[in-house]
Amino acid sequence: MASRQATEEDPDEAFVVETVRALGGATQGGFGVGDDAALVGAGEVVTTDTMVEGVHWDHRLAPADVGWKLVAVNVSDLAAMGARPRWATLAATLPAPLDRAWWQAFVTGLDAALRHWRLPLVGGDTTRAMHARVLTLTVVGRAASPVMRSTARVGDDVWVTGQLGRSAEALLRTTPGADAMAWLRRPEPPVEFGASLAESGLVTAMIDLSDGLARDLARLCRASAVGARIDPQLLPGGRPLAESVAFGEDYELCFTADPASAVAICSGAARHGLTVTRVGAITGDALPLLVGHACWPAPRFDHFSGDLH
Amino acid sequence: MASRQATEEDPDEAFVVETVRALGGATQGGFGVGDDAALVGAGEVVTTDTMVEGVHWDHRLAPADVGWKLVAVNVSDLAAMGARPRWATLAATLPAPLDRAWWQAFVTGLDAALRHWRLPLVGGDTTRAMHARVLTLTVVGRAASPVMRSTARVGDDVWVTGQLGRSAEALLRTTPGADAMAWLRRPEPPVEFGASLAESGLVTAMIDLSDGLARDLARLCRASAVGARIDPQLLPGGRPLAESVAFGEDYELCFTADPASAVAICSGAARHGLTVTRVGAITGDALPLLVGHACWPAPRFDHFSGDLH
Repeated sequence: MASRQATEEDPDEAFVVETVRALGGATQGGFGVGDDAALVGAGEVVTTDTMVEGVHWDHRLAPADVGWKLVAVNVSDLAAMGARPRWATLAATLPAPLDRAWWQAFVTGLDAALRHWRLPLVGGDTTRAMHARVLTLTVVGRAASPVMRSTARVGDDVWVTGQLGRSAEALLRTTPGADAMAWLRRPEPPVEFGASLAESGLVTAMIDLSDGLARDLARLCRASAVGARIDPQLLPGGRPLAESVAFGEDYELCFTADPASAVAICSGAARHGLTVTRVGAITGDALPLLVGHACWPAPRFDHFSGDLH
Repeated sequence: MASRQATEEDPDEAFVVETVRALGGATQGGFGVGDDAALVGAGEVVTTDTMVEGVHWDHRLAPADVGWKLVAVNVSDLAAMGARPRWATLAATLPAPLDRAWWQAFVTGLDAALRHWRLPLVGGDTTRAMHARVLTLTVVGRAASPVMRSTARVGDDVWVTGQLGRSAEALLRTTPGADAMAWLRRPEPPVEFGASLAESGLVTAMIDLSDGLARDLARLCRASAVGARIDPQLLPGGRPLAESVAFGEDYELCFTADPASAVAICSGAARHGLTVTRVGAITGDALPLLVGHACWPAPRFDHFSGDLH
């Protein structure tokens, strides 16, 4: 059985989300829960993600990496819906007096990511911070065939893209590999592949892996009212279980599909120069289970806050 | 001649804006400068505004007022483009442990404003603050006939809606009037009127008054490469000049139009239950001038930061 720790949410965050959802009338779509991004009208998808200095990054990220990552975490949410990014706005809250060298470096990394995903920055706002920098990017995208997390079916395969646990390795080990450090600093969520998967009609549900497979798969299963059995031997990357499933910042995709679609999915991934791995199956269990383990490893990390659970 | 203080921008903010604009390729539209909101494709308009605790509000605003005002300042930007709001996303950065009573009250005011402007909140993100609360709302709207600030013509009249200086009165006086306090806490920018003005084709340029007429009219004139002559006797509200033009947080509209349109503008305003006042004219001068004064009063206030210039 999955451990409680692997599925529970922060109670304060849950309170925030519930108060907003309770508004009813004026509010619709997923405020912080539900899908990775909100569907607004026909195929129009929006996501917003904030990075707070000291919470979402520390000295291990250069200012340019922060700029890259702010774009990456947002387009990852769009990828999970099968959406391509169209445009973005930036709200930057910065302490006075301005550290111009920091800002200039941040903008360089931001620009690199905006170009990588061909995403125009159309507007923004700058305000004065009291202490830490707070950076919010809002990205609007378009999905020809939006994919939700609530539509997985019993019997589907569970897949993940790329490898798991690179950011965990980068942050937890004394001497992490260069690949792991590079992914921590400049993750490249598979946006084009996510959109093409959605358009292919091969996937039944999808979520991005920002909080680790244990938590994110639990969300997908809860939304779909299904369970799952995951084989730890199949997890790509070959890292210890806690790094692979209980850490986060993977910025890979986790998706479900009919087993008959396996060959088409693999060849689609190959066309995008990506690897995909079948890691288990959707079941009628009450929760996602980790085969051969009584419970999932407890979450090890809540971004850079230092809160090791 | 207008005083230098009345037109200059914060050099740090200018640096932030210029570095982003200098990116070229990936970036387009007005990042913090140019128009109040960015035009994205045909008639699609977006604005984003952040409120920082201790900078944009203090104890004089109840949490519910902060919620209302966060919506109001954003829809005011859309109104200045002649756009109607369609949907919004909220990014809330809140100190841990969460003050649930504060958040619940904030949401009540936010909801009241969302309902007032019939604006669905479709998504959001909550993150942990290090210190002060930081709230960013991004609002997307649609403008059938977007209006810029760069298209005023010599000979146009200069108009303002409502009255000027209510927030100034509320914040500067020992015993402000109830109307002034109410507007400080729950401003009601004329969104429907802004959209109908734009659709009527009667206005040539428009801007919202968030930083005071002195600064905002200077921006409109600079963007349009024109000057203006404003008659201080005509400013609506009957408050001292410094309160009327050099403070801000008016959340009224300032627009320009051919003198032949005056009757149509007044009757349009009457249909919306609003007052409009002709306060001067656009000229070929190098700057906006205040008739009978050597210079504009120096800006008195930079939101709630305590920075009196």
